[in-house]
Amino acid sequence: MLDNTSYNLDELAAHTGSLVVGDGLCQIWGLNTLLNANAQELSFLSNPAYSSCLASTQAGAIILHARDSGLFSGNKLITENPYYTFALISQLFSSSPKVEGDIHSSVIFGASCNIANDVDIDANVVIGSNVTIGSGSRIGAGCYIGDNAVIDENCLIYPNVSIYENTLMGKSCIVHSHAVIGSDGFGFAPKKDGKGGWQKVHQLGGVVIGSDVEVGAGTTIDRGALDNTVIENGVKLDNQIQIAHNVRIGENTAIAACSAIAGSTLIGKRCTIAGAVGVIGHLTITDDVHVTAMSLVTKSIPKSGSYSSGTPLNETAKWRKNAARFNRLDSIVRKFC
Amino acid sequence: MLDNTSYNLDELAAHTGSLVVGDGLCQIWGLNTLLNANAQELSFLSNPAYSSCLASTQAGAIILHARDSGLFSGNKLITENPYYTFALISQLFSSSPKVEGDIHSSVIFGASCNIANDVDIDANVVIGSNVTIGSGSRIGAGCYIGDNAVIDENCLIYPNVSIYENTLMGKSCIVHSHAVIGSDGFGFAPKKDGKGGWQKVHQLGGVVIGSDVEVGAGTTIDRGALDNTVIENGVKLDNQIQIAHNVRIGENTAIAACSAIAGSTLIGKRCTIAGAVGVIGHLTITDDVHVTAMSLVTKSIPKSGSYSSGTPLNETAKWRKNAARFNRLDSIVRKFC
Amino acid sequence: MLDNTSYNLDELAAHTGSLVVGDGLCQIWGLNTLLNANAQELSFLSNPAYSSCLASTQAGAIILHARDSGLFSGNKLITENPYYTFALISQLFSSSPKVEGDIHSSVIFGASCNIANDVDIDANVVIGSNVTIGSGSRIGAGCYIGDNAVIDENCLIYPNVSIYENTLMGKSCIVHSHAVIGSDGFGFAPKKDGKGGWQKVHQLGGVVIGSDVEVGAGTTIDRGALDNTVIENGVKLDNQIQIAHNVRIGENTAIAACSAIAGSTLIGKRCTIAGAVGVIGHLTITDDVHVTAMSLVTKSIPKSGSYSSGTPLNETAKWRKNAARFNRLDSIVRKFC
Repeated sequence: MLDNTSYNLDELAAHTGSLVVGDGLCQIWGLNTLLNANAQELSFLSNPAYSSCLASTQAGAIILHARDSGLFSGNKLITENPYYTFALISQLFSSSPKVEGDIHSSVIFGASCNIANDVDIDANVVIGSNVTIGSGSRIGAGCYIGDNAVIDENCLIYPNVSIYENTLMGKSCIVHSHAVIGSDGFGFAPKKDGKGGWQKVHQLGGVVIGSDVEVGAGTTIDRGALDNTVIENGVKLDNQIQIAHNVRIGENTAIAACSAIAGSTLIGKRCTIAGAVGVIGHLTITDDVHVTAMSLVTKSIPKSGSYSSGTPLNETAKWRKNAARFNRLDSIVRKFC
Repeated sequence: MLDNTSYNLDELAAHTGSLVVGDGLCQIWGLNTLLNANAQELSFLSNPAYSSCLASTQAGAIILHARDSGLFSGNKLITENPYYTFALISQLFSSSPKVEGDIHSSVIFGASCNIANDVDIDANVVIGSNVTIGSGSRIGAGCYIGDNAVIDENCLIYPNVSIYENTLMGKSCIVHSHAVIGSDGFGFAPKKDGKGGWQKVHQLGGVVIGSDVEVGAGTTIDRGALDNTVIENGVKLDNQIQIAHNVRIGENTAIAACSAIAGSTLIGKRCTIAGAVGVIGHLTITDDVHVTAMSLVTKSIPKSGSYSSGTPLNETAKWRKNAARFNRLDSIVRKFC
Repeated sequence: MLDNTSYNLDELAAHTGSLVVGDGLCQIWGLNTLLNANAQELSFLSNPAYSSCLASTQAGAIILHARDSGLFSGNKLITENPYYTFALISQLFSSSPKVEGDIHSSVIFGASCNIANDVDIDANVVIGSNVTIGSGSRIGAGCYIGDNAVIDENCLIYPNVSIYENTLMGKSCIVHSHAVIGSDGFGFAPKKDGKGGWQKVHQLGGVVIGSDVEVGAGTTIDRGALDNTVIENGVKLDNQIQIAHNVRIGENTAIAACSAIAGSTLIGKRCTIAGAVGVIGHLTITDDVHVTAMSLVTKSIPKSGSYSSGTPLNETAKWRKNAARFNRLDSIVRKFC
């Protein structure tokens, strides 16, 4: 990877496989929106809703699709997929510190850990016994990593993450602060005590996370009851998501914030689950399913496509009347059938 | 409690009050699903949907109800309630470490704490003044426990939990990582500043938690405004639940992940609230109420039973048409009445 | 501010600009509800639903509106806004410790920090380089504060909060345990790998928080992609709220627990968003909008007022019939039109 604080357009084109139109030596010091970019900054047009900003943008250069090239007369990077090209360049301008092999003196290790040489571990991290951390990984301050956990190479664990024992995590994962991986699944058997008491089902499985997985801030992933909970390669989980025990999330599926997947549900590959969605337990959702925001999935989905539930927003006074009708809908319909 | 790494069926039957059919000396080294169990493992049949797995399972023995006994010809534990029996046995195979009376040298105590002799406290725990921790309790790394808090006997607090001052917790509770107990309730009085500003109502109550309560990862329980927030004995709270100020949750009620209970609502005993449910404030919900996933409870529920709200999942294109009709439902119905 | 453990009514009246009726020397040692207050305690009547408690309350004095004065014959504080007056007095009885200028010996600082003299920092806090903390602020145990963050004067950060680099926070903010400020926004560009993979969009913006903002336990606020995520002065965020990248929340808006605001949405001033509400991305919501619990906002709201979505709670058996009709609503209506 390149490692400067600024790049000229020729360098950025070479890095991303795009084409320069204009001055290839134009030096770029940062990225910004069309609205706010200045002459030292690069911007991009992906969403056509922003085309009108091209006329007035002060950006030094723009990443554009060839079809939009005529809309801007300044320096351009022409590419098939402007947002993807922008994503590649965003990495160049990201300030992630380099791994230095620093382990803070306050870090506590259990017995028999296997920590690669070039790993950074910040202050007050507590690591159990027999933990493995692979080359290039960084562990932020205050994290807890339980016995027998494996964190593979080049992972980035932000501060104050809790990883329970026996969790396995692949290469190049990112885990944000206050995520919890490996907490007990919610399993209780009714007692015959006449009082509705519950007997805990001890959770004996683990969590297995593939490579290139991102886990958002405050997201919780429960350990399996007997088998493992599995997050496959390339899965992206936003903040405050709940993944219950024995769920399996297929490769490259992305789930937006505050969604909850109940126990033993299997979600396929390349699904996109919007925010605040609920999926009940013991379902099977096939590949390439899209679920819109705040929907509740109550049945297995055997066919790819987009799915929704809920009702549209309305002024409360109008909504109240419609909602009252909803609650008598069956009898209303019967009257007319 | 027994304390081996393996048990024969006679031992397991004696421990659980069940009946062996077959070889009582069959040695069991672990638990597994019908699908994955091997000849050294015990499995169980509780959900009839899995009956078909009995024909091909490789399990060394199965926990079964007497009525299903004929479905399996191998070694069996016969019991009235296979899932409950399985739960009892799961504890035998759980690897929870024993309490050793170890207090890590990095632990910080305020003045006048009362810590029983056989308590484990892991590294970097910070404990305020006048805190009591009872015999047999374990506190995970990085926890914070505020002034005057009481944690009774045999509690298990996982790493990175925050317990605010004055919280009272009964015996044998389990609290998972990143739970917060005792944070301020959300109380603000409108200011007369003409700008919509808010005056904080300082939260002077506390949180009182009974015995045998489990609190999931990332769950938050706010302190009361004046009175306490109360979680009664045997309540089970899954991950990422929000319990607002002055809520009372009755004995043995179980709440699944991501549900939120607004302020001053009273929930009865033995209720089951599914995941992602919302309950608005100042309601009273009687005993033995069940609420299905992602419902919103907007009125008190004086009668036991099962309650729901929401609309079913549909393909987005079809859903959109139905949802558009919903938003005019009152006027549509009026046209025909 | 006054600083006693008890106050007489004359003192409380002077502090709050209210009028004493009865014995101005009546000494008040605490606050309580009408139901539970004793003769040494002050209570208040704000919600008329509780008027009936006035007859039997044992409170030593009551905060009342003039119009309700006749309902209670004991000592009274008469005020235009009893709840606001109660809020002011609640602060007097709040036990928040004073700032002592104590920095625990275990606290770790990066280079070039600028920490005011009268700041309290509790044990095991880890602070990055070039961090500024203003006079009168308190940082609880186990917090992490990243490089270049600025925490202005008189802030109260509870234990185990994570604040990522470059976050700016104004004066007199309160942040509860396990809040995360500045985590990466959820930004990924689809790869052209034929497998549905995602290229991370590195999040180069920050979070800017105004003054007098409260952030609840477990709430997450993501950093912007290019511009900042902005929380304006006086905003109150309850627990477990998700604020995505580039959201802007206008002055004095209050959001209840478990709501989620998706990326780039702009919310106006003085809005009140109830609990478990979802707001999708790229919307503009004007000032003075109110959204009821668990609604999903899917369109911009250009007009002040109250908005709702969802369906009312019903017994599950009845709900199921109505919900089934909903899923065929369009075709049912077409049949009759």
